[in-house]
Order: sequence, then structure tokens, then C-alpha cells
Amino acid sequence: MKPRSYLDWNATTPLRPEAKAAMIAAMECVGNPSSVHAEGRAAKSLLERARGQIAAALGADGADIVFTSGATEAAALACAGRGLHCADVEHEAVSAWCQADLAADAQGQVHVTDPARTALQYANSETGILQTLPEGLAVSDLTQAFGKVPLAFNWLGCDMGLISAHKLGGPKGIGALILRRGLDVAAQLKGGGQEMGRRAGTENLIGIAGFAAASEAAARDLANGVWDQVAEIRNILDSALSATANETISVGNGVPRLPNTLCLVTPGWKGETQVMQMDLAGFAVSAGSACSSGKVKASRVLRAMGFDDVAAGSALRISIGPATTTEDVLRFADVWGAQYRKARARA
Amino acid sequence: MKPRSYLDWNATTPLRPEAKAAMIAAMECVGNPSSVHAEGRAAKSLLERARGQIAAALGADGADIVFTSGATEAAALACAGRGLHCADVEHEAVSAWCQADLAADAQGQVHVTDPARTALQYANSETGILQTLPEGLAVSDLTQAFGKVPLAFNWLGCDMGLISAHKLGGPKGIGALILRRGLDVAAQLKGGGQEMGRRAGTENLIGIAGFAAASEAAARDLANGVWDQVAEIRNILDSALSATANETISVGNGVPRLPNTLCLVTPGWKGETQVMQMDLAGFAVSAGSACSSGKVKASRVLRAMGFDDVAAGSALRISIGPATTTEDVLRFADVWGAQYRKARARA
Repeated sequence: MKPRSYLDWNATTPLRPEAKAAMIAAMECVGNPSSVHAEGRAAKSLLERARGQIAAALGADGADIVFTSGATEAAALACAGRGLHCADVEHEAVSAWCQADLAADAQGQVHVTDPARTALQYANSETGILQTLPEGLAVSDLTQAFGKVPLAFNWLGCDMGLISAHKLGGPKGIGALILRRGLDVAAQLKGGGQEMGRRAGTENLIGIAGFAAASEAAARDLANGVWDQVAEIRNILDSALSATANETISVGNGVPRLPNTLCLVTPGWKGETQVMQMDLAGFAVSAGSACSSGKVKASRVLRAMGFDDVAAGSALRISIGPATTTEDVLRFADVWGAQYRKARARA
Repeated sequence: MKPRSYLDWNATTPLRPEAKAAMIAAMECVGNPSSVHAEGRAAKSLLERARGQIAAALGADGADIVFTSGATEAAALACAGRGLHCADVEHEAVSAWCQADLAADAQGQVHVTDPARTALQYANSETGILQTLPEGLAVSDLTQAFGKVPLAFNWLGCDMGLISAHKLGGPKGIGALILRRGLDVAAQLKGGGQEMGRRAGTENLIGIAGFAAASEAAARDLANGVWDQVAEIRNILDSALSATANETISVGNGVPRLPNTLCLVTPGWKGETQVMQMDLAGFAVSAGSACSSGKVKASRVLRAMGFDDVAAGSALRISIGPATTTEDVLRFADVWGAQYRKARARA
């Protein structure tokens, strides 16, 4: 079997060993956090310890952390029924609840006029492009940024933030809504009154333990410069691919972006085709966000930035992580280059 | 340290070894089930295999299984906005979305007049009392019944069922809505279009793997008569406690009920007091459903059955499982009896 390189970290990340260990430990916790007996209190204590770990990692001490089944649920809790505005660069879990009537410029920057009625992501999942968040922003999707770039929720000046465990080495299916102190949201899940009445349902304790351990480890890595090394490797890949193919556009190359993301548009060479060819060659990459990757269509994000349909359908996203080596990306560049030349010869 | 006996299985169950093993194995699955590359397809395959295991265990082949973050979310998906009716014996996660205007009789039985507009549980979490589901029922909460009594969704004659992993030895934070073939529900979480467009959000793959393994193991145990033994031990406890205290009422003793549940009303001796005293003595039990156990109030369920406030505030729920031994329950009966005599002496 060919060796495989997983270069799709923005879709989801491998589970960190710290998260795995915390989850296995939490499996021994028998109680329901809502129960008043010793077993229930032990579960509650694990839950609240995890909440504190995440607050510390996110710079959100004093803010309220409402655990949800992921950033999608956090987005619904933060955005539904509020008449918020956004640009089409937002993830569909956010834009589904907003009017997507804000413009993005050719560099992916969104110009916000009414922050208190706007949802704006911190980082884009497809291009890695970072936004400058205006003071007083209603909602910011921090999913892709948390753990990859230094940020402190308490300094962002936004009311609510959305985060997800599986983008930073935690498990899938757990996330949170972060609420600036003093704010509240109406529960969408009702019943047991968990999470201070904001989100009913017995808590995903094992997932939460993994989320907390992953957040803590991610914050430590970030402080230790791990993501600067990731950026160096991404830049090596960026240069190698750009040297191979002149007409290729490295989206967001000239603006602040995530250290791990490379979005490459090669007009006329379909993203899906590239993904399939690279998959056969042993590389896991993406033609856009994972959620919509089953559907064959041009990237909403790139169209919002002014790319035409052909270009927006010709994007490849390579997103790497701390486990990715220079050798991985150089092998990728070789194989991609060979496929590129074949595609050009056919064209 | 005193040995502890966990006798609160209706609140939540210890994680089964089969679930633990399946979860640890799923931790090695790197991909996002929505990704098209090999890692994504492996994750998708794990997801669909789990769905099949749960369908088989639940007798729901051919029905659609929509994974949710638990039965609370499944209840919202099944019930919200549909104008359903229910009785006050339903869990609050169901009754929150219904008009609770149906009556229950003194034996806890609910008489349904319009099944197509009614939600009715299969088993009650506090009393264990089983209902006879009428043909054509809109929604049935199967959470407490699944894995404890033989049932096949396809033979229930109801449109939708709600299930939860952590009541049958799976992890907390994962459940499902079961839909009779041909039915649909409007998504409440939007975005990535997962679960056939019915429930967006990256799937809780590790939790789902644990849910499937637990369901399979629970169905096997049930077929092997494990719950008949549980019922014998419960009956030993029931007799021992009733012999100790004459005025005590064993709720549901005369009607079909779950094999593991004993709901004991000792009028005038507060449920919370009993829970705390038994906790100090090493036994985890409950004064009602775990979700509301933080709140000091009389049981809605018992009031719906005609108990007065004093009686409904004097309930103790002991819910056991396959790991509970005769010795556990006899020790419990001894300690409870001693506390009972003290309480009576004070009164």
C-alpha cells in the first residue's frame, strides 16, 4: 500500500494523544453531571474543569461557555432568528441563519458597517484568510482560528464566538458557544435545563474532556511556535506549486492568513479532479469545505471574492498540521506537478 | 473509603467495555465523513456501519436513523412545532414541545385518543411503567426501554422514535431520531447538509461507534436473559424494602414496568433527604429524573398519576443494571431500613 499523507486538517484533524488520554480517562466517570450523588458530582467536576481549561486556552476567562454538539449547533444558537448579516465567505452553518448581503473584496476582506448585526468569521476554512474583526461584532466563527493563531476571546470585542473541538485535535461532535459575560441566548434544546438553561441534554462528557485536553495542548503548541514551523512548511509548498504552474493563483497569499492553509486555483483544472487524482496518489486534500465536498459545485467563498465560476470550480485546498513534514509537502508538489503537466498536455 | 454501589442506571449507565473498545478504535479514524478522499470514505463507512448496527439492535431495518446529540435533540426534531399532545409523565425534553393535556391514570397509563397527534413514551424513567402504544402514534420516547425490554421499532406502529446511547451502556451526548420509512423532518441544524439534510454538523464519530457497539451488546444481553436476572434482583429489593416499611408504596408494582426500576414512595420522608443519606452511606440513587434532580420539587410524573405533593416529594428511584448484585441490593435494603427507622423515630 502507498504511504498516505493527510493534508486536510481544515476538514478535521487527527485526534491528539492528549485528547485521547483524557477521553479514555473520562470513560471511567460513571455519573450524570445532573445527579446529586457522589458519582454525579464527580462528573460535574470533570465538566466544569473542562470548561475552565477551554476558557483559559481561548482567553475567555469570565465569559460563559455553552457546550454544544459542534460549531454548527453553536452557530444556530448564536444566529437563528436575529436578522444578522454576513458575507458569503461564512460557513453555511452561519450563513444559513443570516442575510448574506455583505460584500467581500478580491482579497477576501469583508467590510462591516453594522457590527452589532453582523456575523464575521475570524478565519476562512477554504482560503485561510483572516479578517480584522470590528469592535462590537455580534458573532464570530472562531472555528478555524482557535488553536492555529494567537487569539483571546476577551480581546476580540465580539459578543459571541463559535468553536469546535475537531479542528484543533479534539473529537468530532463537540463544540461550544462563547458568550461575553452578561449576555444570554434562548435555549433551542429544552428539557433538563443543563448549561444554565441554555442547552438541554445530558452533556457529552467524554467529548468535552477531549475538547478541553486538545484546547490546552493546542494553546501550548501555539505558544511554543509550532505553528510558525507549520507556516514555513506551507510556504515551501506554496513556492513549489507556484513554481510548477505559472497561471496558478495562491489565494490569500498577499494577506494575513492561517499558517497551515493553501488555496490554489488553477483555472480550468477542476478541483474535484485534482482531489481524486491526489487521493489515488496517496494525498488527502479537498476542493473546498468538507461539508459540501460531496456536492460538485464551485466554491461560494471564491465566488464571493470575485472569481468566476470556472476559477471557483478549480480550487484545491491543502491544509496541513503539526504532523506534516517538509518531505510530505515536497512529495505532494512532485506528484501534483506531474498531474498538472498531464492535464495541460490534454488541454 | 466505603465501597460504592451505583444504583442510578436510569440516570446514566457505566460505559460498556464493548463501547469503550469501539470508541478507542474509532479514535484512529482520521477523516471527516463528508470528505471524498480515502480517509473521509473510511470515516463514512464507520458511520454507516454503526447506523446498521443500531437499526439491527432496535428492529428498525429500513427505517431512517438520524444521529443527534442525544434524545433531547431527537425530541426537539420530532416534536417541535407540530402541536402534539402528551401527558405529564413524558420527560421534559418531550413535554417542552407538546401540550401536556392528556391524563394518566393511577397506574400511570395514558389514554390516547388521537395517536397521530400524540407523543407517548414506551417506558417512564422514574417509575419504569410501560405504556401500550396505540397504532399510528406520532412519536415515542424509547430512551429508557431500548436495551432493557424486547422491542422492535418496526413493529411499534409509531412514526418516530427517540433513543439515547448513555441509557444502554454507550457514551453520553449521542442519540438518534428514528423515522419510519418515507417520513421526513425539517432540519433544525443547518449548514453542511449531513444526515441526508436532516441534521447538519460533523458527526460525533467516536460517540456513534460507542453507541453502535453498546446497542449491539445490549440486544445480545437482552436475548440472553440478562434482564430477567436484573428483574429478579429488583424484585428481591422491592420485597425487602416493602417488608421494612408498611406504608411505603412501590409505584407500578402491579403493572408492566422496566425490569430494573423501583420507585418507592414513603409519604413524608423527602426524596432528597433519602438520596443524600444513601449517598453518604455509599449508594447512588435518585429522587426523580437526573435532569431535574438539582431542583428540589415534587415529581411531575407522580403528580400526573394522582399522588399529592407530599407523596410526590417523597419518592426514591432505585434503578439497577446487569452489574448490580443481590448483595448490593440487600446491603441497600439494610441501610435504607436503618435510616427509615431513624426518620420514623424523629417524626
